[in-house]
Amino acid sequence: MRRIAWVAAAVTALAGGAAYMEAASGQSNGEAAPIYGIKIPDAYRDWRLISVKRLTGKQLTGDGGALRQLRAELGNDLAIQAYRDGTRPFPDGAIIAALHWNEDSSDTDNQALAAGFPGLGLASSFAGSAMNVQFMVKDSKKYAASGGWGFADFTNGKPGNEALHAKCFSCHQPAKDRDYVFTHYAPTP
Amino acid sequence: MRRIAWVAAAVTALAGGAAYMEAASGQSNGEAAPIYGIKIPDAYRDWRLISVKRLTGKQLTGDGGALRQLRAELGNDLAIQAYRDGTRPFPDGAIIAALHWNEDSSDTDNQALAAGFPGLGLASSFAGSAMNVQFMVKDSKKYAASGGWGFADFTNGKPGNEALHAKCFSCHQPAKDRDYVFTHYAPTP
Repeated sequence: MRRIAWVAAAVTALAGGAAYMEAASGQSNGEAAPIYGIKIPDAYRDWRLISVKRLTGKQLTGDGGALRQLRAELGNDLAIQAYRDGTRPFPDGAIIAALHWNEDSSDTDNQALAAGFPGLGLASSFAGSAMNVQFMVKDSKKYAASGGWGFADFTNGKPGNEALHAKCFSCHQPAKDRDYVFTHYAPTP
Repeated sequence: MRRIAWVAAAVTALAGGAAYMEAASGQSNGEAAPIYGIKIPDAYRDWRLISVKRLTGKQLTGDGGALRQLRAELGNDLAIQAYRDGTRPFPDGAIIAALHWNEDSSDTDNQALAAGFPGLGLASSFAGSAMNVQFMVKDSKKYAASGGWGFADFTNGKPGNEALHAKCFSCHQPAKDRDYVFTHYAPTP
Protein backbone atom coordinates (compact mmCIF):
# COMPACT_ATOMS: atom_id res chain seq x y z
CA MET A 1 0.00 0.00 0.00
CA ARG A 2 2.82 2.33 0.78
CA ARG A 3 4.31 1.82 -2.63
CA ILE A 4 0.96 2.38 -4.22
CA ALA A 5 0.67 5.68 -2.40
CA TRP A 6 4.06 6.76 -3.66
CA VAL A 7 3.23 5.86 -7.18
CA ALA A 8 -0.02 7.73 -6.93
CA ALA A 9 1.98 10.67 -5.67
CA ALA A 10 4.25 10.40 -8.67
CA VAL A 11 1.22 10.99 -10.76
CA THR A 12 0.65 14.22 -8.95
CA ALA A 13 4.25 15.19 -9.27
CA LEU A 14 4.53 15.00 -13.00
CA ALA A 15 1.17 14.73 -14.63
CA GLY A 16 0.03 18.04 -13.28
CA GLY A 17 -2.39 16.95 -10.64
CA ALA A 18 -5.19 19.48 -10.63
CA ALA A 19 -7.41 20.50 -7.81
CA TYR A 20 -10.95 21.70 -7.76
CA MET A 21 -12.05 24.83 -6.03
CA GLU A 22 -15.60 24.45 -4.88
CA ALA A 23 -16.25 28.16 -4.99
CA ALA A 24 -15.21 28.34 -8.61
CA SER A 25 -18.05 26.37 -10.08
CA GLY A 26 -20.52 25.79 -7.32
CA GLN A 27 -20.54 22.14 -8.29
CA SER A 28 -18.48 19.42 -6.75
CA ASN A 29 -18.74 15.86 -5.63
CA GLY A 30 -17.91 13.79 -2.62
CA GLU A 31 -15.29 14.25 0.01
CA ALA A 32 -12.76 17.09 -0.15
CA ALA A 33 -9.10 16.19 -0.48
CA PRO A 34 -6.79 17.20 2.41
CA ILE A 35 -4.71 20.38 2.61
CA TYR A 36 -6.28 22.17 -0.35
CA GLY A 37 -9.90 21.20 0.28
CA ILE A 38 -10.67 20.35 -3.29
CA LYS A 39 -13.56 18.18 -4.48
CA ILE A 40 -14.07 16.36 -7.77
CA PRO A 41 -15.52 18.76 -10.34
CA ASP A 42 -18.66 17.80 -12.18
CA ALA A 43 -18.33 16.48 -15.72
CA TYR A 44 -14.55 16.78 -15.91
CA ARG A 45 -14.63 13.77 -18.28
CA ASP A 46 -16.18 16.15 -20.83
CA TRP A 47 -13.29 18.62 -20.74
CA ARG A 48 -11.08 19.15 -23.76
CA LEU A 49 -7.77 17.43 -24.31
CA ILE A 50 -4.48 19.05 -23.33
CA SER A 51 -2.16 16.13 -23.97
CA VAL A 52 -1.51 12.41 -23.60
CA LYS A 53 1.16 10.92 -21.34
CA ARG A 54 2.62 7.63 -20.20
CA LEU A 55 4.29 6.64 -16.93
CA THR A 56 6.38 3.55 -16.36
CA GLY A 57 8.28 2.29 -13.36
CA LYS A 58 10.38 -0.64 -12.31
CA GLN A 59 8.67 -0.90 -8.97
CA LEU A 60 5.79 -3.13 -8.09
CA THR A 61 2.30 -1.77 -7.92
CA GLY A 62 1.06 -4.34 -5.48
CA ASP A 63 0.08 -7.04 -7.95
CA GLY A 64 3.64 -8.01 -8.80
CA GLY A 65 3.75 -6.26 -12.15
CA ALA A 66 5.67 -3.24 -13.33
CA LEU A 67 3.94 0.11 -13.40
CA ARG A 68 2.57 1.04 -16.83
CA GLN A 69 0.02 3.83 -17.13
CA LEU A 70 -1.54 5.75 -19.98
CA ARG A 71 -2.81 9.18 -19.08
CA ALA A 72 -4.85 12.04 -20.46
CA GLU A 73 -4.73 15.62 -19.30
CA LEU A 74 -7.94 17.56 -19.80
CA GLY A 75 -8.61 21.23 -19.11
CA ASN A 76 -11.65 23.32 -18.29
CA ASP A 77 -12.35 26.23 -20.63
CA LEU A 78 -10.06 28.65 -18.79
CA ALA A 79 -7.19 26.21 -18.81
CA ILE A 80 -7.57 25.32 -22.49
CA GLN A 81 -7.76 28.99 -23.47
CA ALA A 82 -4.64 29.79 -21.45
CA TYR A 83 -2.77 26.93 -23.06
CA ARG A 84 -3.75 28.04 -26.55
CA ASP A 85 -2.95 31.69 -25.91
CA GLY A 86 0.25 30.92 -24.02
CA THR A 87 -1.05 32.83 -20.99
CA ARG A 88 1.20 32.32 -17.94
CA PRO A 89 0.56 32.28 -15.09
CA PHE A 90 -2.73 30.50 -15.66
CA PRO A 91 -5.76 32.62 -14.69
CA ASP A 92 -7.70 32.02 -11.51
CA GLY A 93 -10.32 29.35 -12.09
CA ALA A 94 -8.24 27.31 -14.50
CA ILE A 95 -8.40 23.60 -13.69
CA ILE A 96 -6.30 20.81 -15.13
CA ALA A 97 -7.41 17.20 -14.72
CA ALA A 98 -5.07 14.24 -15.07
CA LEU A 99 -6.82 10.93 -15.72
CA HIS A 100 -4.74 7.82 -15.16
CA TRP A 101 -5.41 4.32 -16.46
CA ASN A 102 -3.55 1.07 -16.30
CA GLU A 103 -2.04 0.37 -19.72
CA ASP A 104 -3.65 -2.68 -21.29
CA SER A 105 -3.41 -4.56 -24.58
CA SER A 106 -5.53 -6.90 -26.68
CA ASP A 107 -4.41 -9.97 -28.61
CA THR A 108 -7.16 -9.33 -31.13
CA ASP A 109 -5.91 -5.82 -31.76
CA ASN A 110 -2.31 -6.93 -32.13
CA GLN A 111 -3.22 -9.84 -34.39
CA ALA A 112 -5.09 -7.39 -36.60
CA LEU A 113 -2.01 -5.19 -36.77
CA ALA A 114 0.24 -8.13 -37.58
CA ALA A 115 -2.11 -9.36 -40.30
CA GLY A 116 -2.57 -5.92 -41.82
CA PHE A 117 1.05 -4.85 -41.65
CA PRO A 118 3.26 -7.92 -41.63
CA GLY A 119 6.89 -7.49 -40.68
CA LEU A 120 6.53 -4.17 -38.95
CA GLY A 121 6.33 -5.62 -35.44
CA LEU A 122 3.53 -3.29 -34.52
CA ALA A 123 1.98 -3.51 -31.07
CA SER A 124 -0.79 -1.45 -29.58
CA SER A 125 -1.89 -0.62 -26.07
CA PHE A 126 -4.74 1.41 -24.66
CA ALA A 127 -6.29 2.83 -21.51
CA GLY A 128 -7.50 -0.10 -19.43
CA SER A 129 -8.91 0.00 -15.92
CA ALA A 130 -9.16 3.39 -14.22
CA MET A 131 -6.53 4.13 -11.60
CA ASN A 132 -6.93 7.64 -10.25
CA VAL A 133 -7.64 11.22 -11.21
CA GLN A 134 -5.87 14.37 -10.10
CA PHE A 135 -6.66 18.06 -10.31
CA MET A 136 -4.77 21.33 -10.22
CA VAL A 137 -6.92 24.35 -9.45
CA LYS A 138 -5.63 27.88 -9.88
CA ASP A 139 -6.53 30.39 -7.16
CA SER A 140 -3.72 32.87 -6.72
CA LYS A 141 -5.01 34.13 -3.37
CA LYS A 142 -6.30 30.97 -1.73
CA TYR A 143 -3.27 28.96 -2.76
CA ALA A 144 -0.67 31.72 -2.66
CA ALA A 145 1.66 29.54 -0.59
CA SER A 146 1.82 26.90 -3.31
CA GLY A 147 2.37 28.95 -6.43
CA GLY A 148 -1.32 29.74 -6.75
CA TRP A 149 -2.23 26.09 -7.25
CA GLY A 150 -4.25 23.69 -5.18
CA PHE A 151 -3.74 19.97 -5.75
CA ALA A 152 -5.97 16.94 -5.29
CA ASP A 153 -5.84 13.22 -5.92
CA PHE A 154 -8.78 10.77 -5.94
CA THR A 155 -9.06 7.01 -6.36
CA ASN A 156 -12.56 5.59 -6.76
CA GLY A 157 -13.90 8.96 -5.67
CA LYS A 158 -11.94 8.95 -2.41
CA PRO A 159 -9.19 11.49 -1.80
CA GLY A 160 -5.63 10.39 -1.12
CA ASN A 161 -4.14 11.04 2.31
CA GLU A 162 -2.43 14.13 3.62
CA ALA A 163 1.09 12.78 3.17
CA LEU A 164 0.40 12.28 -0.51
CA HIS A 165 -0.95 15.78 -0.97
CA ALA A 166 1.92 17.30 0.98
CA LYS A 167 4.30 16.24 -1.79
CA CYS A 168 2.46 17.81 -4.72
CA PHE A 169 3.81 21.32 -4.71
CA SER A 170 7.43 20.46 -3.96
CA CYS A 171 7.50 17.97 -6.82
CA HIS A 172 6.14 20.63 -9.18
CA GLN A 173 8.94 23.06 -8.34
CA PRO A 174 11.11 22.07 -11.33
CA ALA A 175 8.35 23.43 -13.58
CA LYS A 176 8.29 26.80 -11.80
CA ASP A 177 9.11 28.67 -15.02
CA ARG A 178 6.00 27.10 -16.58
CA ASP A 179 3.76 28.13 -13.69
CA TYR A 180 4.44 24.76 -12.04
CA VAL A 181 2.74 22.83 -14.82
CA PHE A 182 4.83 20.13 -16.50
CA THR A 183 2.48 19.28 -19.34
CA HIS A 184 2.63 21.12 -22.63
CA TYR A 185 -0.31 21.45 -25.00
CA ALA A 186 -0.16 18.74 -27.64
CA PRO A 187 -0.09 20.18 -31.17
CA THR A 188 -3.05 19.61 -33.46
CA PRO A 189 -2.13 17.03 -36.12
CA MET B 1 8.41 6.86 -47.67
CA ARG B 2 6.84 3.51 -48.37
CA ARG B 3 7.44 2.39 -44.81
CA ILE B 4 5.99 5.62 -43.53
CA ALA B 5 2.86 5.02 -45.54
CA TRP B 6 2.50 1.55 -44.08
CA VAL B 7 2.94 2.81 -40.58
CA ALA B 8 0.39 5.50 -41.20
CA ALA B 9 -1.93 2.83 -42.48
CA ALA B 10 -1.41 0.87 -39.31
CA VAL B 11 -2.80 3.81 -37.51
CA THR B 12 -5.96 3.52 -39.53
CA ALA B 13 -6.13 -0.17 -38.94
CA LEU B 14 -6.17 -0.12 -35.21
CA ALA B 15 -6.78 3.30 -33.85
CA GLY B 16 -10.16 3.62 -35.43
CA GLY B 17 -9.39 6.09 -38.18
CA ALA B 18 -12.44 8.24 -38.61
CA ALA B 19 -13.66 9.94 -41.72
CA TYR B 20 -15.55 13.15 -42.19
CA MET B 21 -18.71 13.44 -44.20
CA GLU B 22 -18.97 16.89 -45.65
CA ALA B 23 -22.73 16.75 -45.78
CA ALA B 24 -22.96 15.96 -42.10
CA SER B 25 -21.75 19.29 -40.76
CA GLY B 26 -21.45 21.60 -43.72
CA GLN B 27 -17.97 22.46 -42.50
CA SER B 28 -14.78 20.96 -43.72
CA ASN B 29 -11.26 21.92 -44.60
CA GLY B 30 -8.81 21.36 -47.40
CA GLU B 31 -8.50 18.52 -49.83
CA ALA B 32 -10.75 15.46 -49.65
CA ALA B 33 -9.12 12.10 -48.97
CA PRO B 34 -9.39 9.45 -51.71
CA ILE B 35 -12.03 6.72 -51.97
CA TYR B 36 -14.35 8.05 -49.24
CA GLY B 37 -14.12 11.75 -50.15
CA ILE B 38 -13.74 12.91 -46.58
CA LYS B 39 -12.33 16.28 -45.49
CA ILE B 40 -10.93 17.38 -42.13
CA PRO B 41 -13.80 18.44 -39.84
CA ASP B 42 -13.67 21.83 -38.20
CA ALA B 43 -12.59 22.01 -34.58
CA TYR B 44 -12.11 18.28 -34.10
CA ARG B 45 -9.40 19.17 -31.55
CA ASP B 46 -12.25 20.33 -29.29
CA TRP B 47 -14.05 16.99 -29.32
CA ARG B 48 -14.33 14.92 -26.16
CA LEU B 49 -12.01 12.10 -25.24
CA ILE B 50 -12.82 8.48 -26.05
CA SER B 51 -9.54 6.90 -25.02
CA VAL B 52 -5.75 7.05 -25.10
CA LYS B 53 -3.55 4.62 -27.01
CA ARG B 54 0.04 3.82 -27.82
CA LEU B 55 1.62 2.20 -30.87
CA THR B 56 5.13 0.78 -31.07
CA GLY B 57 7.01 -1.00 -33.81
CA LYS B 58 10.38 -2.49 -34.51
CA GLN B 59 10.53 -1.00 -37.93
CA LEU B 60 12.15 2.25 -38.92
CA THR B 61 10.08 5.34 -39.42
CA GLY B 62 12.47 6.99 -41.83
CA ASP B 63 14.76 8.64 -39.32
CA GLY B 64 16.37 5.44 -38.11
CA GLY B 65 14.44 5.20 -34.87
CA ALA B 66 11.85 2.74 -33.73
CA LEU B 67 8.21 3.70 -34.00
CA ARG B 68 6.75 5.08 -30.76
CA GLN B 69 3.46 6.96 -30.83
CA LEU B 70 1.03 8.26 -28.26
CA ARG B 71 -2.50 8.70 -29.49
CA ALA B 72 -5.82 10.17 -28.47
CA GLU B 73 -9.20 9.20 -29.83
CA LEU B 74 -11.82 11.93 -29.75
CA GLY B 75 -15.46 11.76 -30.74
CA ASN B 76 -18.06 14.21 -31.94
CA ASP B 77 -21.23 14.42 -29.85
CA LEU B 78 -22.97 11.56 -31.65
CA ALA B 79 -19.98 9.27 -31.24
CA ILE B 80 -19.51 10.08 -27.55
CA GLN B 81 -23.19 9.53 -26.83
CA ALA B 82 -23.16 6.19 -28.64
CA TYR B 83 -20.12 5.09 -26.70
CA ARG B 84 -21.68 6.05 -23.37
CA ASP B 85 -25.02 4.44 -24.19
CA GLY B 86 -23.45 1.37 -25.76
CA THR B 87 -25.31 2.01 -29.01
CA ARG B 88 -24.11 -0.27 -31.82
CA PRO B 89 -23.98 0.18 -34.69
CA PHE B 90 -22.98 3.82 -34.30
CA PRO B 91 -25.60 6.24 -35.65
CA ASP B 92 -25.15 8.05 -38.93
CA GLY B 93 -23.17 11.22 -38.38
CA ALA B 94 -20.95 9.79 -35.68
CA ILE B 95 -17.30 10.69 -36.24
CA ILE B 96 -14.24 9.33 -34.46
CA ALA B 97 -10.92 11.16 -34.72
CA ALA B 98 -7.57 9.54 -33.99
CA LEU B 99 -4.76 12.01 -33.25
CA HIS B 100 -1.25 10.61 -33.45
CA TRP B 101 1.90 12.09 -31.99
CA ASN B 102 5.48 10.98 -31.78
CA GLU B 103 6.19 9.89 -28.21
CA ASP B 104 8.70 12.22 -26.59
CA SER B 105 10.30 12.60 -23.17
CA SER B 106 11.98 15.30 -21.09
CA ASP B 107 15.06 15.01 -18.89
CA THR B 108 13.63 17.71 -16.64
CA ASP B 109 10.43 15.75 -16.13
CA ASN B 110 12.24 12.52 -15.41
CA GLN B 111 14.69 14.19 -13.04
CA ALA B 112 11.74 15.61 -11.15
CA LEU B 113 10.25 12.14 -10.88
CA ALA B 114 13.53 10.65 -9.69
CA ALA B 115 13.97 13.38 -7.11
CA GLY B 116 10.42 13.20 -5.84
CA PHE B 117 10.14 9.41 -5.80
CA PRO B 118 13.61 7.91 -5.44
CA GLY B 119 14.03 4.22 -6.12
CA LEU B 120 10.85 3.76 -8.11
CA GLY B 121 12.53 4.03 -11.50
CA LEU B 122 9.73 6.21 -12.80
CA ALA B 123 9.90 7.53 -16.34
CA SER B 124 7.42 9.71 -18.17
CA SER B 125 6.67 10.37 -21.82
CA PHE B 126 4.22 12.63 -23.58
CA ALA B 127 2.76 13.61 -26.94
CA GLY B 128 5.53 15.31 -28.91
CA SER B 129 5.42 16.41 -32.52
CA ALA B 130 2.21 15.81 -34.45
CA MET B 131 2.26 12.93 -36.90
CA ASN B 132 -1.14 12.48 -38.51
CA VAL B 133 -4.86 12.46 -37.85
CA GLN B 134 -7.47 9.99 -39.01
CA PHE B 135 -11.24 9.97 -39.11
CA MET B 136 -14.01 7.41 -39.27
CA VAL B 137 -17.36 8.80 -40.41
CA LYS B 138 -20.57 6.81 -40.12
CA ASP B 139 -22.98 6.98 -43.05
CA SER B 140 -24.78 3.66 -43.42
CA LYS B 141 -25.98 4.43 -46.94
CA LYS B 142 -23.04 6.26 -48.49
CA TYR B 143 -20.53 3.81 -47.06
CA ALA B 144 -22.69 0.68 -47.14
CA ALA B 145 -19.90 -1.26 -48.87
CA SER B 146 -17.50 -0.67 -45.97
CA GLY B 147 -19.65 -1.44 -42.97
CA GLY B 148 -21.21 2.01 -43.00
CA TRP B 149 -17.88 3.71 -42.33
CA GLY B 150 -15.79 6.05 -44.40
CA PHE B 151 -12.11 6.42 -43.54
CA ALA B 152 -9.59 9.21 -43.98
CA ASP B 153 -5.98 9.94 -43.10
CA PHE B 154 -4.22 13.31 -43.14
CA THR B 155 -0.66 14.43 -42.49
CA ASN B 156 -0.04 18.16 -42.29
CA GLY B 157 -3.51 18.69 -43.68
CA LYS B 158 -2.84 16.57 -46.78
CA PRO B 159 -4.68 13.29 -47.34
CA GLY B 160 -2.81 10.01 -47.67
CA ASN B 161 -2.84 8.21 -50.98
CA GLU B 162 -5.39 5.77 -52.37
CA ALA B 163 -3.36 2.67 -51.54
CA LEU B 164 -3.33 3.68 -47.91
CA HIS B 165 -7.06 4.28 -47.78
CA ALA B 166 -7.78 1.02 -49.60
CA LYS B 167 -6.47 -0.87 -46.58
CA CYS B 168 -8.63 0.77 -43.92
CA PHE B 169 -11.76 -1.31 -44.05
CA SER B 170 -10.10 -4.71 -44.44
CA CYS B 171 -7.91 -4.03 -41.42
CA HIS B 172 -10.97 -3.13 -39.35
CA GLN B 173 -12.68 -6.46 -40.14
CA PRO B 174 -11.51 -8.15 -36.92
CA ALA B 175 -13.60 -5.61 -35.01
CA LYS B 176 -16.73 -6.39 -37.00
CA ASP B 177 -18.66 -7.40 -33.88
CA ARG B 178 -17.93 -3.95 -32.45
CA ASP B 179 -19.16 -2.16 -35.58
CA TYR B 180 -15.58 -2.19 -36.94
CA VAL B 181 -14.28 0.08 -34.17
CA PHE B 182 -11.37 -1.28 -32.16
CA THR B 183 -11.26 1.38 -29.48
CA HIS B 184 -13.30 1.05 -26.30
CA TYR B 185 -14.43 4.00 -24.22
CA ALA B 186 -11.96 4.63 -21.38
CA PRO B 187 -13.65 4.47 -17.96
CA THR B 188 -13.88 7.64 -15.88
CA PRO B 189 -11.39 7.46 -13.01
